[in-house]
Amino acid sequence: MKNLILASTSTVHGGSYLEYLKPQLDLHFKAVERLIFIPYARPGGISHELYTSNAQKFFNSLDIEVVGLHSFKDPIKALEHAEGVFTGGGNTFLLVKQLYENKIIAPLRDRLYQDMPYLGTSAGTNIAGVSMQNTNDMPIVYPPSFKTLGAVPFNINAHYLDPDPNSKHMGETRETRIKEFHHFNNVPVIGLREGSWIEVKQRTYILRGPHSARIFEATKLPYELPTDSEITVS
Amino acid sequence: MKNLILASTSTVHGGSYLEYLKPQLDLHFKAVERLIFIPYARPGGISHELYTSNAQKFFNSLDIEVVGLHSFKDPIKALEHAEGVFTGGGNTFLLVKQLYENKIIAPLRDRLYQDMPYLGTSAGTNIAGVSMQNTNDMPIVYPPSFKTLGAVPFNINAHYLDPDPNSKHMGETRETRIKEFHHFNNVPVIGLREGSWIEVKQRTYILRGPHSARIFEATKLPYELPTDSEITVS
Repeated sequence: MKNLILASTSTVHGGSYLEYLKPQLDLHFKAVERLIFIPYARPGGISHELYTSNAQKFFNSLDIEVVGLHSFKDPIKALEHAEGVFTGGGNTFLLVKQLYENKIIAPLRDRLYQDMPYLGTSAGTNIAGVSMQNTNDMPIVYPPSFKTLGAVPFNINAHYLDPDPNSKHMGETRETRIKEFHHFNNVPVIGLREGSWIEVKQRTYILRGPHSARIFEATKLPYELPTDSEITVS
Repeated sequence: MKNLILASTSTVHGGSYLEYLKPQLDLHFKAVERLIFIPYARPGGISHELYTSNAQKFFNSLDIEVVGLHSFKDPIKALEHAEGVFTGGGNTFLLVKQLYENKIIAPLRDRLYQDMPYLGTSAGTNIAGVSMQNTNDMPIVYPPSFKTLGAVPFNINAHYLDPDPNSKHMGETRETRIKEFHHFNNVPVIGLREGSWIEVKQRTYILRGPHSARIFEATKLPYELPTDSEITVS
């Protein structure tokens, strides 16, 4: 039993933090009075405290109290009793390293399989996949493993970007990078554009939001999946 | 004693493979008849054989034979006897994993300190730094460590890209990513634009090519270093 919203980004261009997801989050966290926030990804290197207070500012509008996981003496116990969890974006390597160091990979995964409402944005979405191997982030710290929660049977490339036909830059496109991944791995990858999210209910994965997603499977040519469609790769 | 060319990219927009570096490489490898090529980074997932033959095509024009390191039964011995080494670009995680698995980190580092002419492009440049932690690549495989050759006292961000003021994309800019790195590490980072390279002679590091470089130090604001200047950070 799973109940997740996995968003490509917390913020769309021109919008404010989580604003575009507000109607969905109002429903998703309807029964939640106190939300546990995992601030480990520290975007721009900001502190756990500041990141948590940024999240609180948005959730004030839904009348939900936000408590940072870093503030608990026993984060495992905190997760066991959580009504809902939100993992924010930032650096995925840092997030995953902290999840391992605090030994909360398994406890968090357990709660995701127990119908607890979960929200991930960017790095927080990435960790719901089989591994963090399709992150766009820089390896600023060395995590003990790239394996993540496996709450969905695929990986997610957040902030998915189409190749720019006018670019003179010679670095690899996102599509090239994901194809390289498939030379060494079979896990399907969902290229999730900013503004899109995946709604997970039990074992059903539905693409939501304004965009199609680009689906990469190891043995197929990449293709577009229209929004409001079920993701059936595994 | 070091003698290295560390290039941001193998190919500049509109040019052919290594063409823009031909005059430098002609001088750099003047005494080399047989060049050892390290094809482990496998750009686009191509085979070691195909990648080596691509390199050979260019070096034909300099009358240099190219032999792939993968083709030796004993790669350590091959490096010990190498007249010169070229490590090509591709995926840095894959390259570093292969360097560790073949136990050639230390032997290669030794040769770089013995005045052997070395060329790196992109991932092959990245590994000359203290660590691979400023790569732009996707973590498609898990290397046993992020530590690299330390032939220069800084890290290099190849294919350095300036922020695009017109972009509507919400993913982190290169500058933001490097600043995040400096929340957790003190190693200086050279943002090396495509077409630029670092010429290393003994312990002198000179920026060459058409562009300035962007220098990131943990405790300073980033700044531009003009071309043909010495890099003095450490």
